[in-house]
Amino acid sequence: VNIPDEALYGFLQNALDERGAQTRQRVLYHALQAAILTGKLQPQSRLPGSRLMAEALGVSRNTMNAALEQLAIEGYLTRSRQGTTVAILPSLPATSNVSCQPVALASRLRQLPSASRRDSPALQLTPGLPATNYFPLPVWRRLLDTVLRREGSLLLGYGDPAGEPRLRGAIARHLALSRGIHCDVSQIVITEGSLEGVRLCTQLLSQAGDVAWVEDPGYPGAKSVFMTAGLQVTGVPVDEEGLSLNMTSAAPTLIFTSPSHQYPLGAVMSASRRLALLDYARQQRAWIIEDDYDSEFRYSGEPVPAMLGMRDSARVVYLGTFSKTLFPSLRIGFMVLPSALAGAVNPVIASLLRGGHRPEQLALAHFIEEGHYARHLAAMRRLYRKRQQALRDALASEMRVAHQVRGGKGGLHLTVILKGVNDYAIIGQARRYQIAPGALSRLYLDPATAQHGLILGYGNTSASLYPGAIRTLNRLIEQTPRGQA
Amino acid sequence: VNIPDEALYGFLQNALDERGAQTRQRVLYHALQAAILTGKLQPQSRLPGSRLMAEALGVSRNTMNAALEQLAIEGYLTRSRQGTTVAILPSLPATSNVSCQPVALASRLRQLPSASRRDSPALQLTPGLPATNYFPLPVWRRLLDTVLRREGSLLLGYGDPAGEPRLRGAIARHLALSRGIHCDVSQIVITEGSLEGVRLCTQLLSQAGDVAWVEDPGYPGAKSVFMTAGLQVTGVPVDEEGLSLNMTSAAPTLIFTSPSHQYPLGAVMSASRRLALLDYARQQRAWIIEDDYDSEFRYSGEPVPAMLGMRDSARVVYLGTFSKTLFPSLRIGFMVLPSALAGAVNPVIASLLRGGHRPEQLALAHFIEEGHYARHLAAMRRLYRKRQQALRDALASEMRVAHQVRGGKGGLHLTVILKGVNDYAIIGQARRYQIAPGALSRLYLDPATAQHGLILGYGNTSASLYPGAIRTLNRLIEQTPRGQA
Repeated sequence: VNIPDEALYGFLQNALDERGAQTRQRVLYHALQAAILTGKLQPQSRLPGSRLMAEALGVSRNTMNAALEQLAIEGYLTRSRQGTTVAILPSLPATSNVSCQPVALASRLRQLPSASRRDSPALQLTPGLPATNYFPLPVWRRLLDTVLRREGSLLLGYGDPAGEPRLRGAIARHLALSRGIHCDVSQIVITEGSLEGVRLCTQLLSQAGDVAWVEDPGYPGAKSVFMTAGLQVTGVPVDEEGLSLNMTSAAPTLIFTSPSHQYPLGAVMSASRRLALLDYARQQRAWIIEDDYDSEFRYSGEPVPAMLGMRDSARVVYLGTFSKTLFPSLRIGFMVLPSALAGAVNPVIASLLRGGHRPEQLALAHFIEEGHYARHLAAMRRLYRKRQQALRDALASEMRVAHQVRGGKGGLHLTVILKGVNDYAIIGQARRYQIAPGALSRLYLDPATAQHGLILGYGNTSASLYPGAIRTLNRLIEQTPRGQA
Repeated sequence: VNIPDEALYGFLQNALDERGAQTRQRVLYHALQAAILTGKLQPQSRLPGSRLMAEALGVSRNTMNAALEQLAIEGYLTRSRQGTTVAILPSLPATSNVSCQPVALASRLRQLPSASRRDSPALQLTPGLPATNYFPLPVWRRLLDTVLRREGSLLLGYGDPAGEPRLRGAIARHLALSRGIHCDVSQIVITEGSLEGVRLCTQLLSQAGDVAWVEDPGYPGAKSVFMTAGLQVTGVPVDEEGLSLNMTSAAPTLIFTSPSHQYPLGAVMSASRRLALLDYARQQRAWIIEDDYDSEFRYSGEPVPAMLGMRDSARVVYLGTFSKTLFPSLRIGFMVLPSALAGAVNPVIASLLRGGHRPEQLALAHFIEEGHYARHLAAMRRLYRKRQQALRDALASEMRVAHQVRGGKGGLHLTVILKGVNDYAIIGQARRYQIAPGALSRLYLDPATAQHGLILGYGNTSASLYPGAIRTLNRLIEQTPRGQA
């Protein structure tokens, strides 16, 4: 089959006339490819010689040849001494005739807890955001640039998959001083914040169908990770002593808890509960994931020691993060593994993680070693203590509706329990006033039977704004029809 | 029960005497906690009043009180008007008596392909490493610092979970020009390199027990992700036209392929194979994961267009990465989703990703927008083309043992097939000479029936070193007993 020359040259010349900034070679390549894919050029039809085509189209023979050669490499054309022919391709339903099939995600993703939007730093009272405007950015910029200048291209390759050893050493020393955790560098794995820590624990220690216990209410990120991995998530109630062991539920493989400062209700898990939980985990061969997300900020007494430090053989993986103590977009957190587990994890870690972000990790190591971290923590503790008190004062004077303040003596938020209020409706309205508290009911596995209330983050909001914001929230609560609570 | 004063004060005084740099409050807290946990202080036994204790130990009453208060908060002590008593805690097996239970990881992790160590940038011929010493680090440092200075603390909070919109826009424009992919910003999700892209596809589109097809031999990272998620991994043979469809295997949910430059054998998937694969995926409602890890580096003809761009309704997720084009420790890659899939993913993305690394993402956006990326790509294409030719020359002159060179006309590596050689033994010995090629057999699902050979990465090694390195490898091959090949 030969192709009528006029037809062939017609559409190629057309394409060349409209080529804009593209090279002639590229235009010819695309025009021929499109003609083959749409059937305008039939399979096994023969093209004229490249010299003839080049002359007819007024392009150089090199250009013509390069376009044909590229199409031959990719299998659209077959070239031999006998000439160039169009390849036989599977017949294609024209795109317009293919009904666009609906796209279904994996079914387990339909139940994920709704994640809060956190990409607007200017909103008041957003939970989980630290005072980023107090972060010593000039110091950080200097350390980052020094690391890049001094280490140069050495830092650009893959690093240790468990994270930079120097950062892990600095973290180990800090944990010994501040959290009562004594571990060595081999037990520490750097993660992309706590969320990746939960994911790694899930991958390493459980399989689809296993049971994971979570505090109810509790951190939505952990629930999302467990559900995404196909685990069965069971909520465990929380009271003044923290997570309350419930031996009647199906035995768990993973137990997720925030014992130092329960999120969002603020309880400190009692020593007796901790020991009972450790014993239970040992009997069931379950693993406790201890989320220590904000315990550096405790405003009365000392920081509460970690469960991991309580017993040598504790089946506990400790998760820490710099998202709250430094800044969230840093995305650096860490896991501390018991040494037996660290030994088992070491051979597979390179299959799961790639290291990386080495300049940021080294800059952070220097930031800790030079004392900037401890100084920043001390300054933020003072700031947040004042902010928490100011928020309590504002609630006492401006929140007229019946409410109850929870949230403990630390951290970056207070939780206000509001009976008979639809918290989700309130937070939707509050955003119009640039106020973005969290809805307590959404932190329960079943919002329909949950307590309602507001999570008020004071980390990112100046105390001077609290009275106005609380007045606004109070008005919205008074004006909103009562929900099922 | 009262505690004998001498015993109590004895061990507390001892602890105070040895306190070193710790505060008295902390020492008292730890000593009392340890005494309670070990049973030295019995449950329900009563402590002397804090005033008496403070006097007996020569500390301030505030100090004494703070230590007792902390223990009460954590549930070790009960304080009331009647005095301070030791709480009733679950009886503890003494740590030394607990036999340390062996730790078992999830069973599916036992089959993960071995990951190569890549943390030594100085080793010659390491696969997958670009020429990091050619990266324009001064430009990068300037852009990063400018972004941090100009945007300030705004960049420190959480960002868009799909990545910085400005970077996604810059990538969309680059893809349209260089890869024939026309997409908008909402279809692009920034990932931690390709590995996270594979993981997200797995989480979004499959569940445990599903079948995933991988090229055999192929990229170990994808296999690790699939196995970790509990998928059944099926190898599909590769020939000169790339992945060869094998309709007799169990129907897949995911199909992982590198059509532009098959890893590690270098084939370009033919147009007819591509179209057949697209049709097959449509019929089976499977998803193709197109790994485009190094197609920017093609040294004859134009880069091969992506499968995603071939058809509007293609069931293809495209994965790109800057690990090879810029530097690996950057850990920035991206997915391009078909628009129907992007619509379905949008509501759950905030549950799976947190955004972050915002300064690095914005610096990269500027790097692309200001033309540094295109310039660097052009320079690296010239460099790698020369290096590939020099490596081919060195193989021709220095590799005396029978061998066959594969690897195509692009990328950062050549694969040398060696019949009757134990490649894994060779790479173990080569490391002693600071040479770190990859073992071809380890890229097969079953190394026992695999071809053997060496993956020679030329990205990170100067051409002047090739003759010596190939001579060394040739000697090692000649000296090593033949393995099962």
